[in-house]
Amino acid sequence: MEVAPRSGCAINAAVEVLGDPWTMLVLRDIMFGNRRHFRELVAGSEEGIATNILASRLKRLVEGGLLTRDDARRGQRAMYSLTEAGIQVLPIMAALGTWGLAHRDGEQRLRVRAELLRDGGPELVDAMMDELRELHLGIPRPDANAPRPSEQLAAAYEAAMRDAGRDSA
Amino acid sequence: MEVAPRSGCAINAAVEVLGDPWTMLVLRDIMFGNRRHFRELVAGSEEGIATNILASRLKRLVEGGLLTRDDARRGQRAMYSLTEAGIQVLPIMAALGTWGLAHRDGEQRLRVRAELLRDGGPELVDAMMDELRELHLGIPRPDANAPRPSEQLAAAYEAAMRDAGRDSA
Repeated sequence: MEVAPRSGCAINAAVEVLGDPWTMLVLRDIMFGNRRHFRELVAGSEEGIATNILASRLKRLVEGGLLTRDDARRGQRAMYSLTEAGIQVLPIMAALGTWGLAHRDGEQRLRVRAELLRDGGPELVDAMMDELRELHLGIPRPDANAPRPSEQLAAAYEAAMRDAGRDSA
Repeated sequence: MEVAPRSGCAINAAVEVLGDPWTMLVLRDIMFGNRRHFRELVAGSEEGIATNILASRLKRLVEGGLLTRDDARRGQRAMYSLTEAGIQVLPIMAALGTWGLAHRDGEQRLRVRAELLRDGGPELVDAMMDELRELHLGIPRPDANAPRPSEQLAAAYEAAMRDAGRDSA
């Protein structure tokens, strides 16, 4: 299924898979929202992804080795999991978020996550990748007692929501 | 010219501008190849960019505030310069290169640059951004006596070429 890359450049190789807005948004929702099923990815999409676009991007991500699809048993829905290559997209995601925060306006509710990732630096990105390996690949985290980054993100999000509520009161 | 973003998410904001393979390749060639004119960008393209695609991507990058276009005097060619927002795409580029190196095959000649950027870490990326600020914005580098990252990249590339020559001899 894979066509020959347009050049042997590593950046080109990456953008041939990842240089598409919907592809990154689908990966974002799987990573940060832990949405693993088609319907969750449609229903939760902030950008209102269309079902045909979602289907094509999931298919490409599976073919490109960034996701695996657990074929559903009869009556169950297929579940998608990140591969190691998919998990390693997280540093690119963090860099995109940092750029978006600096150079584009956004909504406070949705900025919190990118701010935390930016301020947490490579250590937080590494810890998040460990958490994704646990969730998607069943590999235990190196320090099982360390707080989960997803909990930090959720706490920061809730705090931002409380502040927003107070401001508008 | 700008349309409303699909959501207030910082990652979405970034991919609405940068989530296109040709956009990233044009920025790469401006950043690493110091190609500042339309014809250089066409002639030097490893991926064989088409002139209509290049024209549309340059226009969008100017509208999006990542490039400025110096309008040519009669008989001269227009020159493109990175803005601060354009220069700050470099960490995303480095992250894409690191991913491509790890998860896709490539050509040694073209991998060298991404390898150096990966191994140099955030310090090298910062130094390269300073060099781009000097070249594109006329802002002197903080340490004018420090070696230029572009020279390190060129030296690494030449060494890799010599090794490749030796291997095939």
